[in-house]
Amino acid sequence: MLTRRDLANAVRFLAMDAIQKANSGHPGAPLGMADMAETLWNDFMSHNPGNPAWFNRDRFVLSNGHASMLLYAVLHLTGYDLSLDDLKNFRQLDAKTPGHPEYGIVPGVETTTGPLGQGIATAVGMALAEKILAKKFNKKNFPVADHYTYVFVGDGCLMEGISHEACSLAGTLGLNKLIVLWDNNGISIDGETSGWFSENTLARFAAYGWQTEEVDGQDGEAVKKALARAKKSTDKPVFISCRTTIGFGAPTKAGSNSTHGAPLGEAEIEHARKLLGWRSAPFDIPAEIRQKWDARLAGQQAEKKWQKLFSDYAKKYPRLAAEFGARLQGDLPGDWRAPLLALVEETLKSGGPEATRNSSKKILEALAPLFPALIGGSADLSASVGTKWSGAKEITPGNFSGNYLNYGVREFAMAAIMNGLALHGGFLPYAGTFLVFSDYAKPAIRLSAMMKQQVIWVFTHDSIGVGEDGATHQPVEQLASLRMIPGIQVWRPADAIETAAAWEEILRHKHITSCLALSRQNLPVLSRAKTITVEKDSTTKDATPTQLLLYTMHKGGYILREAAGEPQAVIIATGSEVALAVSAAEILEEKKLPVRVVSMPCAEAFDQQPVAWRCKVLPPNIRARVALEAGGKDWWRKYVGLDGAVIGMHDFGKSAPGKVLFNHYGFTADNVAKTVETLLKSKNTETK
Amino acid sequence: MLTRRDLANAVRFLAMDAIQKANSGHPGAPLGMADMAETLWNDFMSHNPGNPAWFNRDRFVLSNGHASMLLYAVLHLTGYDLSLDDLKNFRQLDAKTPGHPEYGIVPGVETTTGPLGQGIATAVGMALAEKILAKKFNKKNFPVADHYTYVFVGDGCLMEGISHEACSLAGTLGLNKLIVLWDNNGISIDGETSGWFSENTLARFAAYGWQTEEVDGQDGEAVKKALARAKKSTDKPVFISCRTTIGFGAPTKAGSNSTHGAPLGEAEIEHARKLLGWRSAPFDIPAEIRQKWDARLAGQQAEKKWQKLFSDYAKKYPRLAAEFGARLQGDLPGDWRAPLLALVEETLKSGGPEATRNSSKKILEALAPLFPALIGGSADLSASVGTKWSGAKEITPGNFSGNYLNYGVREFAMAAIMNGLALHGGFLPYAGTFLVFSDYAKPAIRLSAMMKQQVIWVFTHDSIGVGEDGATHQPVEQLASLRMIPGIQVWRPADAIETAAAWEEILRHKHITSCLALSRQNLPVLSRAKTITVEKDSTTKDATPTQLLLYTMHKGGYILREAAGEPQAVIIATGSEVALAVSAAEILEEKKLPVRVVSMPCAEAFDQQPVAWRCKVLPPNIRARVALEAGGKDWWRKYVGLDGAVIGMHDFGKSAPGKVLFNHYGFTADNVAKTVETLLKSKNTETK
Repeated sequence: MLTRRDLANAVRFLAMDAIQKANSGHPGAPLGMADMAETLWNDFMSHNPGNPAWFNRDRFVLSNGHASMLLYAVLHLTGYDLSLDDLKNFRQLDAKTPGHPEYGIVPGVETTTGPLGQGIATAVGMALAEKILAKKFNKKNFPVADHYTYVFVGDGCLMEGISHEACSLAGTLGLNKLIVLWDNNGISIDGETSGWFSENTLARFAAYGWQTEEVDGQDGEAVKKALARAKKSTDKPVFISCRTTIGFGAPTKAGSNSTHGAPLGEAEIEHARKLLGWRSAPFDIPAEIRQKWDARLAGQQAEKKWQKLFSDYAKKYPRLAAEFGARLQGDLPGDWRAPLLALVEETLKSGGPEATRNSSKKILEALAPLFPALIGGSADLSASVGTKWSGAKEITPGNFSGNYLNYGVREFAMAAIMNGLALHGGFLPYAGTFLVFSDYAKPAIRLSAMMKQQVIWVFTHDSIGVGEDGATHQPVEQLASLRMIPGIQVWRPADAIETAAAWEEILRHKHITSCLALSRQNLPVLSRAKTITVEKDSTTKDATPTQLLLYTMHKGGYILREAAGEPQAVIIATGSEVALAVSAAEILEEKKLPVRVVSMPCAEAFDQQPVAWRCKVLPPNIRARVALEAGGKDWWRKYVGLDGAVIGMHDFGKSAPGKVLFNHYGFTADNVAKTVETLLKSKNTETK
Repeated sequence: MLTRRDLANAVRFLAMDAIQKANSGHPGAPLGMADMAETLWNDFMSHNPGNPAWFNRDRFVLSNGHASMLLYAVLHLTGYDLSLDDLKNFRQLDAKTPGHPEYGIVPGVETTTGPLGQGIATAVGMALAEKILAKKFNKKNFPVADHYTYVFVGDGCLMEGISHEACSLAGTLGLNKLIVLWDNNGISIDGETSGWFSENTLARFAAYGWQTEEVDGQDGEAVKKALARAKKSTDKPVFISCRTTIGFGAPTKAGSNSTHGAPLGEAEIEHARKLLGWRSAPFDIPAEIRQKWDARLAGQQAEKKWQKLFSDYAKKYPRLAAEFGARLQGDLPGDWRAPLLALVEETLKSGGPEATRNSSKKILEALAPLFPALIGGSADLSASVGTKWSGAKEITPGNFSGNYLNYGVREFAMAAIMNGLALHGGFLPYAGTFLVFSDYAKPAIRLSAMMKQQVIWVFTHDSIGVGEDGATHQPVEQLASLRMIPGIQVWRPADAIETAAAWEEILRHKHITSCLALSRQNLPVLSRAKTITVEKDSTTKDATPTQLLLYTMHKGGYILREAAGEPQAVIIATGSEVALAVSAAEILEEKKLPVRVVSMPCAEAFDQQPVAWRCKVLPPNIRARVALEAGGKDWWRKYVGLDGAVIGMHDFGKSAPGKVLFNHYGFTADNVAKTVETLLKSKNTETK
């Protein structure tokens, strides 16, 4: 007769053996958590291994991602498309089993984990997503959105600050269908945690408003009872401390940090086989154990049942069902560009100076009603960053009928929760804070980009234009730091028109993480009299001039103001500095120096254009180039090279009115013009 | 008869009026906390306004830094070198009163605050510093290190994750002389916090192991009693919730978020004068109130008393007193370079391949015994990052006789605590984690640099060389992100010798924040047979060849391997890629293409060299330049311009053995050589 332990041991040996074969990995946590996993997956998880994308599945997040082999073993055993060969390929190039669980690579992995603390915060986003969809779409007898979110966390996750941010908010909101199991083994990499982590974690979570309890995590039946109690919680998320032994089953190493991050060794594993009574060879799982784990049929049936429920629902509530379906698919609404175009037309006609943070808000006002999936928020700066449009309705404790989150002063959790909302499906999350505080959220923005999630950041107060708040609030290196995240797009629009173009691209790109960098201060609507737009082709033959202008901006960099004559120099600028560049060009033109102004709202988009466009905008032979941005300088050498000049920030900024600072740091038309002249003079000297 | 409230109102009106004059600032928190501040500063703070650097002063940290005018008013009133004119200059260019408190600009400000949560974490470092110094230096009847650390925090600080990290650790360690007063006003920028911050914060802090209580923060006497109880705590830090009203005293706006971040307006202030019975004109403080606040005489006496204590101590414990003095001054030990030189000599003679994380540890072994101020640590990766040398002794709960901190998995708090240790005086903090997790700590690294603190980061696993842990653990954009922080120095040494040179510079620079980026994998000791070292001059005439070699490395970029003939191209490389560059140069040399290899362990140091050195290393006329670094590419255009090439990372990395990844991403000698050849070919074509 098979015991729970026998089933759990299948996970243990797959983990031990795969890690040994890879000669790399983390056996301690999989061995300790195998009993918890066995109970959760065999007795509770509602999922369909044949279709990991089935919407109404329970979500599982392995927040302590280094225990990846636990998850891979479970996914393999329950029947996901993860073969024994995949397990044998653990941690090898382009395998489906990377060192840490990676979304998009491993079927069944709901989010990329490894950077500690982010998993649990992302799971908060998933649990929240379920609540909001349930509130919006569920009808009596039709719980079309109805699942739990389960999380395994380790000590490391709970030490990380983001676990505080996310779990405090989860408690406040009352996410009762979020159930967290803590692998409470008292060991982290440096040894026994009592020397650095002695808090009463259960009391801490109770203080957050969670339901808590502690059980023996090595006792599958005890875990089962705890999970059953957890599922009964009606208004609180649940935190279950599972007392475990790290490396459980390793005869000499169990209970020690030596099991954490290195293979156990052949001898230890051999002894473990004896100790645990496991007679099978590596990667050989007895058929009866396989059968008990196999969740394919049950999964199929669960999904089928839900499909039936949904098709009945669609008959009774066709409009809701259609909206639900569209949201899950991430469909763009029909003719969503019309109101944007109207706004742009109006602005071109009569737009006055406006901070781009306000331009962005106007765009939200115009577009958000068309995008029910949009879910906004801010880290306690709603009014400042312009994320709360008039149709934004706050989600409040216990009331999930809204589309706006007050995240509190929790930038990092906000980022991870947005990832969870996006990954869950049905949501298009955007949120705002000051650009300088992107640093606080950065590790999760990085994961957004790595997972190719459409998460939208509204970063405002994007330079020394912040003014009096001073150096601590003035971003310098942040723009380049964000731009250098692979796959991300950073938009720093020069005026209301470019802000509209940016939002248009951001909404359109389903798999790109985007950042807007917006001004606190007013910026004029720029004249486009000398703008060189894209030429009409077969696909754009019916485009209006305004549409052509927006298409031009979508290229990321374009000729905003062509020189009056063969350009001798190019000024490349972004955001609030583009107007300065134009003024400088005007000064130079009076001196008979024709200078082109290139606006580059999104360098990453520009870099992806065909070489013809890039050379048209920045002709290789024009080396007198000046980059102008009120941010760090180094990054701009990418476009101006060794022969150009960069006008940017060399220190952290200061506290003074924004205009004073622009003068102080040389962001004036005169200084820009002078820099161009100096550059041209030195070129001419060289030529002579 | 003056009441406490009258004294507090002096702070209130200075704050209201200065903010009104600046037409910018945050009145809500100063008005709410004025009574708390009045009690703390008039009845408890031991400090000397005449000498803000007096070592044994109580430390005060305004973690909610936007309440800056509260602190400036108190500093002015107690007698610091902060005049009424300074207050009238609030938030103006180069004033001593910037928008948020900035260390080094405002006398009496112990740390720069504003980015929320960091103040309280930095204060944990200060309280820890006191404990460690007291343990080491205090003798019976001679408490030479004996002060409290007081902190004001707002809701925002407590929502931020770093407050969890730092306060959980403070509770574990038992920092009883850390006393935190929470401005518990229930309001943050977005409104009433109950919608996003309803945790039981007192219970949360109790769970961390803190002593807690709640009082009426508007009642100075109640605060006084609470502070008296707090000072009696023997083994727990103390958290006092002070219930307050934001904007207290503002007749129509008190209690509302409208007081948070904008001037109250002339009319509201006028009414406040009536409501609070304040008859003085703006910036006019009645003499009797001034007198009550004036702490100059008491401060002088307090310092004098301590000076007497210390001079008696010096007589009785001359060795200890000398060490204490040296540590407070940050003196470098005598002949500290000798063991480093010996290690370098030995490595040059017989050093085999070694990961630079291990080279760094050997250097610590050689030097750390000479630097008693060194205080090490790691965020739960001690063995991996090589920070725990053999003489490192762990600080454990309640036992402060050590020089090594197990910070737990708390990178951000670690960074802020290091700032606190450095700011406190007597310590030279260093700590380690993986380079990719620098992102978690970044906002506090930024403040280290802004405050010009000598904080040393040992970042290891510095590229895809991480190997199997995969994309989540492989840094890409991190090197450039760190390099772009103004004033910082990032060292990525190529081998054991450069690692020694880096440590030498890092230890020497008292006011520079430094990061080491070290390899996980072994790197050979490079041949220096073709290295061009600095020439001897009057100051270095007695230098040995090894010393000259180190001086050369200190320049940040140097000719590691000169070409055999006039160089046609330059390869610029750092860290683990320098050896590859050398191999590529050898391949090219066989093809009769003389190529120079420049090692650039610290670009920031290189940029500070005289133009002659920079042009010698990177001659302006050599445009065939290839930069080679297993990190993000864009930043390197700074040195190779538009005509060069960069071999770097274009995505997030993958999970596979490190060597496999180096091949996969083109980090091979052949590919580097090919890139140089292609570049030269295109140049030649151009010339033709």
